[in-house]
Amino acid sequence: MRALIFDNGLSLDAKRPEPRREEGDCLIKVRQAGICATDLEITRGYMGFKGILGHEFVGEVVESPGARQWIGKRVVGEINVVCGRCDLCLSGLSNHCRNRTVLGISKRDGAFADFVRLPAINLHEVPPAVEDEAAVFVEPLAAAFQVLKQVKLDGKKWVTVLGDGRLGLLCAQVLRNAGCPVRVIGRHPEKMRLCDQWGIRSRAAADITPRHDQEVVVDCTGSASGLEMAMQLVRPRGTIVLKSTVADGKALNLAPIVIDEINVVGSRCGPFREAIKALTEKSVDVTSMIHRRMKLDQGLEAMELAAKPGVLKVILTMD
Amino acid sequence: MRALIFDNGLSLDAKRPEPRREEGDCLIKVRQAGICATDLEITRGYMGFKGILGHEFVGEVVESPGARQWIGKRVVGEINVVCGRCDLCLSGLSNHCRNRTVLGISKRDGAFADFVRLPAINLHEVPPAVEDEAAVFVEPLAAAFQVLKQVKLDGKKWVTVLGDGRLGLLCAQVLRNAGCPVRVIGRHPEKMRLCDQWGIRSRAAADITPRHDQEVVVDCTGSASGLEMAMQLVRPRGTIVLKSTVADGKALNLAPIVIDEINVVGSRCGPFREAIKALTEKSVDVTSMIHRRMKLDQGLEAMELAAKPGVLKVILTMD
Repeated sequence: MRALIFDNGLSLDAKRPEPRREEGDCLIKVRQAGICATDLEITRGYMGFKGILGHEFVGEVVESPGARQWIGKRVVGEINVVCGRCDLCLSGLSNHCRNRTVLGISKRDGAFADFVRLPAINLHEVPPAVEDEAAVFVEPLAAAFQVLKQVKLDGKKWVTVLGDGRLGLLCAQVLRNAGCPVRVIGRHPEKMRLCDQWGIRSRAAADITPRHDQEVVVDCTGSASGLEMAMQLVRPRGTIVLKSTVADGKALNLAPIVIDEINVVGSRCGPFREAIKALTEKSVDVTSMIHRRMKLDQGLEAMELAAKPGVLKVILTMD
Repeated sequence: MRALIFDNGLSLDAKRPEPRREEGDCLIKVRQAGICATDLEITRGYMGFKGILGHEFVGEVVESPGARQWIGKRVVGEINVVCGRCDLCLSGLSNHCRNRTVLGISKRDGAFADFVRLPAINLHEVPPAVEDEAAVFVEPLAAAFQVLKQVKLDGKKWVTVLGDGRLGLLCAQVLRNAGCPVRVIGRHPEKMRLCDQWGIRSRAAADITPRHDQEVVVDCTGSASGLEMAMQLVRPRGTIVLKSTVADGKALNLAPIVIDEINVVGSRCGPFREAIKALTEKSVDVTSMIHRRMKLDQGLEAMELAAKPGVLKVILTMD
C-alpha cells in the first residue's frame, strides 16, 4: 500500500506492507485524512516518532475479526490505544494509559496510508449527515471540546483564544457555542475574516497590549512563545489552557506563573461523541477551514503546504 | 540608620535616612529579619529591584499617626502594600493589586534595616508565645499555608515536596499537619534528618526514578529545573504547585504539561493568621531551621552564607 512515512526525513512509500493485524484490531481503508500541527512537529523531532504519520482520518472498516458488525461502517478513530489494565486505565484516565500507543504519534503507524489498523473499541461510526471531509475534523474538534471539560467557563466574560490556526479556530467556535464571549488573537487577516463570518470577535496580535486582564487564555499558537504571550494576557489567578506541543524548548521566564498565581492546564485529546454531534448539527463550521484537498500521492507537497504560515487544513484523499 | 542595600551590588549603608512617613504608614523598629531565597534571587537580577532588601521581619511599632493603638506592639507585616481601588483589589484579589508595592521586592524599601515602614492594615500583632526568631518565619510559613488554599489535598496519598530548602521544609510540615502523607525529595542529608525528627518521609533526589505517579508535587527547589523534575514525578492529570521564582529562564520542554494534561498552579503569598496560629501552637518547628543568627552589621557575610547549598535560615538581628 501507499504510505507517507517519517524516518528522519519524509518519504512516500508506494509499497509499504499492509498493517499487521493484531487481536481485536480492525483494518480500515482510509478515505481522507487531515494534516495537523502535530504531524509537522513530528517532522521537527517531536516525540521521536518514526513510521506512518497521520491521526486525523475517516475510513471504512474492511476487516473486523472480533466484531463483525463494524464491517462496512464509515468510522473515525480515537488515537490512544490503551491497555485497560494499568493504574491509569483502571482509574478512568485511559487516555493517559502507561502502555499506550498513539496513532501516528507514538509506537503505532498512522493514517496517511491506504489502510490503518485500530481496535474496534477506538472506533466511532460517522452519521450520514457528516461528510468525509468534515469527519476528518472529529479528532481536532474533540481536542477543542476538551477545554470545556477542564475549565469552568460559566459566567466568564474575558476569554481569549491565542492563535488563529486550525485548532484555535475550532476552540473559538466550541467556546462561542458554549455561550462564552470569546475573542481570537491572530496574525492572519483571512482567518480573522472567518471569525467575522462566525460572529466571533478577533484582534491582530500586533494590536494587543499585555493588560493582564483575561480570565482564561487558551494557547493554540503551536509555538513555544505562546505561553509567554498568554502570561501577559491572563489576569492574576486566571487560567491558561495550554494546547501547544512543540518539539523545541524555549528559555521562558516562568516567574509570572508564581507571581500572578496563574493556573496552567495542559489539554490534549477530547470527547469524540461531542465533536461528532457538533458536526452532525453543523454547529461548528469546518468546511470553511479547508485550505486544499490533495491526493496521498502529493503527500510531500501537502506537508510543505500545511507548514506555510496562514494555511489552514490540508486534507489528503486516498482515492 | 543602617540598611542592607542592593543597587547592582550589595552594600551596607550605615547612614541611610530613616524611611519617609506616608499617610497611614507605621514606623517599625526592626528586631530580627530572615534571609529568603527571593532576597538572593534579587541580587541575581530578579524583579529588577533596587533598594533595601528584606521582607521577613519582626519589629516593634514606634510611630503610628493614624492608629495609635499599634504603638509599642510587636508585629509582623504582610508584604503587599495595595491600593484598595483597582479591579483586583475590588474583586478580593488585593494580594495581586495592580498598583502594589512589595516590601523589599518591588518599589518599596525592605526590612534589612533599623527601621521599616508599612501601613497599619498590613500588620499582625505577634502573641507572646511566639519568640522573635520564630516570628521571622511568619511570612514564609504563610506562603506554605497558601498551598492548602489552592489545592485540594483531602484523601490524596501521593504528595511530594520537591526541595529541602527553607520553603520546602515549611511546606512539608504544613502538609503533614493537614493530614497529608507527604514525602520530601532533597539533596542534603542534614535536612533530611530534620524530616526524620518531624516524622516526615524523605528521599534523596539522586535515588529518585521518574515514575509519573505523584498526585501533587510542590516545587520548592527555587531552581528553574525544579519544574522539569516535577513534570517527571507527577502523574497524568496531577498537579504541580510552583513556588520557585528565579531570575533566569531555562529552556524547558513543556510538552509534558500538555501530553500529561498536568495542572500547574503558581503559588505566592499566603495567610498570616494561620501561620501565626501554627507558631503559637508550636505545630510547626522553625527553631530547628535556623542555621545562624548574625548581626545586621554582618549583613554581607550573612547573605553569602545564606546562598551556600545546604544552609537553612540565616537570621539578621538589629540589636
